[in-house]
Amino acid sequence: MKVLAIDPGYERLGIAVLEKEDGTTKEKLVFSECFKTLASDPHPLRLAQIQKRIEEVLKEYKPDDLSIETLFFNKNVKTALMVAEARGVIIATCKNFGCEVFEYSPQQIKTSVTGDGGSDKNSIIKMIPLLIKLEKEVKIDDEFDAIAAGICHISSKKVINR
Amino acid sequence: MKVLAIDPGYERLGIAVLEKEDGTTKEKLVFSECFKTLASDPHPLRLAQIQKRIEEVLKEYKPDDLSIETLFFNKNVKTALMVAEARGVIIATCKNFGCEVFEYSPQQIKTSVTGDGGSDKNSIIKMIPLLIKLEKEVKIDDEFDAIAAGICHISSKKVINR
Repeated sequence: MKVLAIDPGYERLGIAVLEKEDGTTKEKLVFSECFKTLASDPHPLRLAQIQKRIEEVLKEYKPDDLSIETLFFNKNVKTALMVAEARGVIIATCKNFGCEVFEYSPQQIKTSVTGDGGSDKNSIIKMIPLLIKLEKEVKIDDEFDAIAAGICHISSKKVINR
Repeated sequence: MKVLAIDPGYERLGIAVLEKEDGTTKEKLVFSECFKTLASDPHPLRLAQIQKRIEEVLKEYKPDDLSIETLFFNKNVKTALMVAEARGVIIATCKNFGCEVFEYSPQQIKTSVTGDGGSDKNSIIKMIPLLIKLEKEVKIDDEFDAIAAGICHISSKKVINR
């Protein structure tokens, strides 16, 4: 099973691909990046760039599932609506590619990684290398957030399949 | 010039294509519909259906520009975020097809049709047949809203090109 996991955003988009190989106990990280769009570019172009990048990743890694963080409404209305636009692009593009789409709240994702829905970024970053095989260096917070969403999906599936 | 004009939504999506032919004084409506998705379908599937329908319309009519209504935040947070997701899908898909994207507020759209930014639906519906050639019957409110967004874009362009 291959999972595309995404921490949605329009300025910084965490993208990760996790794979569970038969006969192994630990999932491995196949790919991760923090995809950025420029604040100086018009918003429609930034959404178009996100769509293109997602299409490239889908074609290269052919994931079965998409795991994406749900959006909670924050104080900044404009930001929330723009992140929702980016989320829409990602979800529609993955669904039309053939992925099943799974959404998890930040609390669900944190709980799956540290056991605590209120844990901070540092605990997440410390736990991740213990939970999956990282064959590349991961530096950026958004990448860790995407990987955490992937771990959450894989562990949910384990529970379902038990 | 051909304009794809959209009244964004995820349950009901007003879609219209308006064309300005050389040597004519009035624009004509080439196509309009109210595209619906089912409340019983999962949200990712509905977003995917919207993306597919937009791609079909783009391929058939090859518009130069997209004119789309901006989203104002309303009381229902969940609805606003879901409409934003649909808007993201539409904008990214049109931009990647090669359209220029133009956004207009409800007030701008109403002003362009009736001269009054606070006018009601009935005034819009009465004015539209006086402003463009309708070669098909238009019945549904969402279609009229899309056509109004198209008229707004065409009249804005006229002002710019003067």
